Amino acid sequence: MLKETRYSYNELTLELVQNLKAIVGEQYVIYDDVERLEQFSHDETPGDYVSMPAAAIRPRTAEEIAAIIKLANRENIPITPRGAGSGLSGGAVPIYGGLVLSVDRMNSILEVDRDNMMIEVEPGVVANDINEHIEPFNLFYAGYPMSLETCFIGGNVAENAGGGKAVKYGVTSRYVLGLEVVTPTGEIIELGGKLVKDVTGYNMVQLMVGSEGTLGIFTKIILKLLPLPKIQADLLCLFKTSDDAISAVPKIMTGGGVIPTSIEFMDSHSVQAACEYLNESLPYEDCGAMLLISVDGMDRDVIEEQYITIGKFCQEAGAIEVYVADNPSTSERIWKVRRNIAEAFSLIEKRQFNDDIVVPPASIPAAIAKLEEISAKYQVQIPCFGHAGDGNIHARVLCRKDWDDKKWAAMQPVILKDMYQMIREQGGRLSGEHGVGCKRKKYLNQVVSEEYINMLRTVKRAFDPNNILNPGKIFDV
Amino acid sequence: MLKETRYSYNELTLELVQNLKAIVGEQYVIYDDVERLEQFSHDETPGDYVSMPAAAIRPRTAEEIAAIIKLANRENIPITPRGAGSGLSGGAVPIYGGLVLSVDRMNSILEVDRDNMMIEVEPGVVANDINEHIEPFNLFYAGYPMSLETCFIGGNVAENAGGGKAVKYGVTSRYVLGLEVVTPTGEIIELGGKLVKDVTGYNMVQLMVGSEGTLGIFTKIILKLLPLPKIQADLLCLFKTSDDAISAVPKIMTGGGVIPTSIEFMDSHSVQAACEYLNESLPYEDCGAMLLISVDGMDRDVIEEQYITIGKFCQEAGAIEVYVADNPSTSERIWKVRRNIAEAFSLIEKRQFNDDIVVPPASIPAAIAKLEEISAKYQVQIPCFGHAGDGNIHARVLCRKDWDDKKWAAMQPVILKDMYQMIREQGGRLSGEHGVGCKRKKYLNQVVSEEYINMLRTVKRAFDPNNILNPGKIFDV
Repeated sequence: MLKETRYSYNELTLELVQNLKAIVGEQYVIYDDVERLEQFSHDETPGDYVSMPAAAIRPRTAEEIAAIIKLANRENIPITPRGAGSGLSGGAVPIYGGLVLSVDRMNSILEVDRDNMMIEVEPGVVANDINEHIEPFNLFYAGYPMSLETCFIGGNVAENAGGGKAVKYGVTSRYVLGLEVVTPTGEIIELGGKLVKDVTGYNMVQLMVGSEGTLGIFTKIILKLLPLPKIQADLLCLFKTSDDAISAVPKIMTGGGVIPTSIEFMDSHSVQAACEYLNESLPYEDCGAMLLISVDGMDRDVIEEQYITIGKFCQEAGAIEVYVADNPSTSERIWKVRRNIAEAFSLIEKRQFNDDIVVPPASIPAAIAKLEEISAKYQVQIPCFGHAGDGNIHARVLCRKDWDDKKWAAMQPVILKDMYQMIREQGGRLSGEHGVGCKRKKYLNQVVSEEYINMLRTVKRAFDPNNILNPGKIFDV
Repeated sequence: MLKETRYSYNELTLELVQNLKAIVGEQYVIYDDVERLEQFSHDETPGDYVSMPAAAIRPRTAEEIAAIIKLANRENIPITPRGAGSGLSGGAVPIYGGLVLSVDRMNSILEVDRDNMMIEVEPGVVANDINEHIEPFNLFYAGYPMSLETCFIGGNVAENAGGGKAVKYGVTSRYVLGLEVVTPTGEIIELGGKLVKDVTGYNMVQLMVGSEGTLGIFTKIILKLLPLPKIQADLLCLFKTSDDAISAVPKIMTGGGVIPTSIEFMDSHSVQAACEYLNESLPYEDCGAMLLISVDGMDRDVIEEQYITIGKFCQEAGAIEVYVADNPSTSERIWKVRRNIAEAFSLIEKRQFNDDIVVPPASIPAAIAKLEEISAKYQVQIPCFGHAGDGNIHARVLCRKDWDDKKWAAMQPVILKDMYQMIREQGGRLSGEHGVGCKRKKYLNQVVSEEYINMLRTVKRAFDPNNILNPGKIFDV
């Protein structure tokens, strides 16, 4: 259980619960019901990131959220906003108790604006539903993350989620053009709009994107869409060693003049675990490492030329074998393996932590080599996989079978210190797409300067003078 | 002369001038020299946006800038940062006198990082020099604006400049990955880095981009580069009327699945003025309007297919004629016409104001029609040109020959009110790429909400408690 006590808040009284019920309707306040509240006490972060709220509330409109936030300011009650709860940094965990505010009922697709190639949605829309909804119009939303089938777009924006296609298309932030936001003091403000360019004031939209629910709750989101690429092809490139595979990445990125949509790295541990979990078999799944490289576009000939170019680079970099999957069913088989790695490791060893290292793309080989050193030093398994084309690697550290829980608790910070030392040396950061949340907060000053953290504090204090909205996340004020 | 008096600052005494000289060296402080100070009193905004500074200072390092800013805070002296002075919103005009801080001596390209496809530069580097410098490496910086031959990259970042290629490549902000910033209180802080993804804290980099010198002075800038496109082709599409031309734009953007690098609109007044100015002749230069559409890529066949597709859309939309320029010299002739429109109109009538309207891309036809109505209503010429693919149009309003200066001064706000009314109705904004500066400040509340402006004020106050850095720009605190 993770409960913080640095700041003090008031208890949620029965009277306040009545007030909340008056705002959203009785059935949308969950109180005094441990069983139903349990789901709001955690997200999907492995480990002990669990803290019970006093109540959960499920508003339907921005006006209701504004009223809730105003009440919380007046009564000094903390609010933790929540999307689908699929986050990986404890961002939605109510570490000060109080109120969890779920946007799950705000799940309408408000408008598909085909002429502007934009879509307006509420925060509770599942990311994948956006693409299913717009596919008939030959449009495409490129910002979604790996958890697209469950995550909410509101959470994606709050975390600035990255995804499999970020190498070519960038992360969520690139597609967020407008937001309706309820501020930490309960004002409803429109930021940005259906505008591709706009320099009328500071870029408040991008300040909000990735603010992890600490600067505002998004109630409407305008996203930019792209023409749907007609053709996609995937290359599965097998290498003898992780080093061979990962060293190929910067060469692919800079050498061929082709920007793939994805360059996913999977070491042998990751591939084997996922294949076993899925009862799937990939060719040479016991090779040292794989790169899964995708290209997309409008023209089959161009795509073919691109994957031939990339395949050649891989072979020059020492690939043993290069397979092309240019039909949807083979593609899906391979991608399913990639998407299920995290889940597979959750079953192998419950005691683990997953990191979301990001370094300059060209430093990926050095980072992976260092992780292997750390793995050898502590004799722990550190399967690595992730978005190598972006410099973003998910490194899971699995507890040794011969360590008890106490030893594991003691060793985690020791191992992390080594990892973050490496990240700092490489000019990297704690998180590429999962966020800091409550999970990485205590390590923040290991990789960024105190002056920078102070600048974040300055912003937070200016927006949320009572520290009501998602307190204790990213940094302490 | 434009001098504001809302805030009060201290005079720059001789003693303070000595202190400033001690920081940067005697020869880099310009004081008591009206002739040399004159150049720092204005940028390139047409109109009376002129205000003399008490002194100008030309530091070489971030440390010098930090010392200057600390002194200014202590002594209550306003500082106006300045790049090349090519801005179009009076952002670099020292409307409170005091000190102009020019970054012209900070003009080194610090590193071309080919492995990461990034470049690190100082703020005084001319935008075009970046591309000349990296072309031999087959790399390309896509964020530059039209004034690339003179503007500084520091100013581009401060204004979040847009450019001819923004339809496909986006504006400056997309390419800024890292900044070294001196804050309004004189601290040197690193934001971002050589990272393609980073969610370790709020997106302070993007808060800084477009902050018009009010939140910090950039001393180092890390930019993302792209593989240099090998092939470019331009289509010059001639239409009978502005309406025909502009109505084709949304169709091109959404219909063909091709995203051009540019869709530039020029009405007949604009084309004729520029052709006359350049002693150039374009085919059918007396047609109603033109679209200049560019595509680029790596493969000649693909490019050919793309321009054929786009040409077809234009013909379906009523183009009289479509010319293809697929060689550099013809392309340069056409683009030169586009780039020189502003300059040409400056010679035709000195009394004018230029606007930088941005609306949702699909609203461009409605916006142009409304501008023509306003032109007829006041019997003023409003030549229109600009980045139609982005919804961003530069509308110049030329003074009538029969109006004296007094009448012109009285009519400007009347005409602007009509224009901004239209912008508001279309969900647009005051500025797509030129910024608000001191020029558009008084109109800000006509298109955005008071709550939004208050949010900007909150940020400014948090960063610059003494209101020292570029006071009176964008909004009043």
